[in-house]
Amino acid sequence: MKPRRTRRSAPPDHRTRVGRERRARTRARILEAAVRVFGEMGPDAPVIDDFIRAAAIARGTFYNYYRSTRQLLEDVSTWLEDELMESIEAEIPGVEHPVERVAMGMRLWMRAAMDHPEWCAFTVKVPRRPGRVERILGGDLMGGLKAGAFSFTSPQVAHDLVVGTIREAMKRITEERVPRTYGEEVAAAVLHGLCLDRRRIDKLMKVRLPAMARPLRSLG
Amino acid sequence: MKPRRTRRSAPPDHRTRVGRERRARTRARILEAAVRVFGEMGPDAPVIDDFIRAAAIARGTFYNYYRSTRQLLEDVSTWLEDELMESIEAEIPGVEHPVERVAMGMRLWMRAAMDHPEWCAFTVKVPRRPGRVERILGGDLMGGLKAGAFSFTSPQVAHDLVVGTIREAMKRITEERVPRTYGEEVAAAVLHGLCLDRRRIDKLMKVRLPAMARPLRSLG
Repeated sequence: MKPRRTRRSAPPDHRTRVGRERRARTRARILEAAVRVFGEMGPDAPVIDDFIRAAAIARGTFYNYYRSTRQLLEDVSTWLEDELMESIEAEIPGVEHPVERVAMGMRLWMRAAMDHPEWCAFTVKVPRRPGRVERILGGDLMGGLKAGAFSFTSPQVAHDLVVGTIREAMKRITEERVPRTYGEEVAAAVLHGLCLDRRRIDKLMKVRLPAMARPLRSLG
Repeated sequence: MKPRRTRRSAPPDHRTRVGRERRARTRARILEAAVRVFGEMGPDAPVIDDFIRAAAIARGTFYNYYRSTRQLLEDVSTWLEDELMESIEAEIPGVEHPVERVAMGMRLWMRAAMDHPEWCAFTVKVPRRPGRVERILGGDLMGGLKAGAFSFTSPQVAHDLVVGTIREAMKRITEERVPRTYGEEVAAAVLHGLCLDRRRIDKLMKVRLPAMARPLRSLG
């Protein structure tokens, strides 16, 4: 009897951990399915049945995690962007100059867009809210301005140039075939828009892009 | 009896014209109401009741013009963009150099976005399809490239820079207060992205913007 009782009275932190891990796995399963569903159907068309079918879960399970498709959409959007930004940040902390960080960050972002078509399709269809991207990018843009390398009339204009151009390029990537160099060309055009010196742009674009150390499994 | 018969047998082209004018007025009334409704509710949420209430028309009248809200959305989108582009084209045919046409066109577009908040809100919420803007802008971008004034790696990159930045700026205009100079700052940043010479940009930005000769009544 003793071993049985021991198992029954396993320390609560163990059971809590197991439960938490199971919850995280189920949430990831719903989120991964949701990326595909939203990417194919857009942000407004899907109904809850689409998600429970794609994730192969019971209806009750869905409601344990989300109350509505809108709530799921917001969670997916934040989850994906956080994951990509963490992966990019993992590459650029060793890159000290803000101008180099902006250039490397945009190039890594565009490579991810070209390598992960499901993520790209999802992202262009979902209206996004400012978040982690704005905080990191905004700081580096101002750093480059103060260093006299960038030139722009306001942080807002610089943001709209960077984010707007990249979003439009991501839209194109989901709609048509683009050359393999497209992401690099877009990043260079944005750096011109920030008035960076041409020779410096040429030099930055020659820096070899690192392979992402953190895998982006969720990005399809 | 004679005058009465004369009136009854009015020439068919007169009756046709009257009918056509009435149809055009009703269509404009539905379209104007639809701009407000889509601008407030987005492209997917509104139902036909929202439009017949906003336009103060009968349900049957709506169905004489449109079979679905999706069909109405597409007609509104094309109608608005055509109207604005016609107004801009009415100003720039006298502007001969493609670089000057791009600069003037972007500045007029951004001024319209700031002066017509309903149109701006509608446009950023509705996914657009390439049309008149692409044909005119695309031609002028290539003209500026051939003249050696612009520099970009492909027409696609130049398009994404111009259209993406302007769309992101329009999104900002619908969400927060921007300075009165915002449209001008955005146009200048895009010209930098197209690698136009700085002194030429400064000069182009000083050219006085004409008042639009064609009124934009539909733009709210």
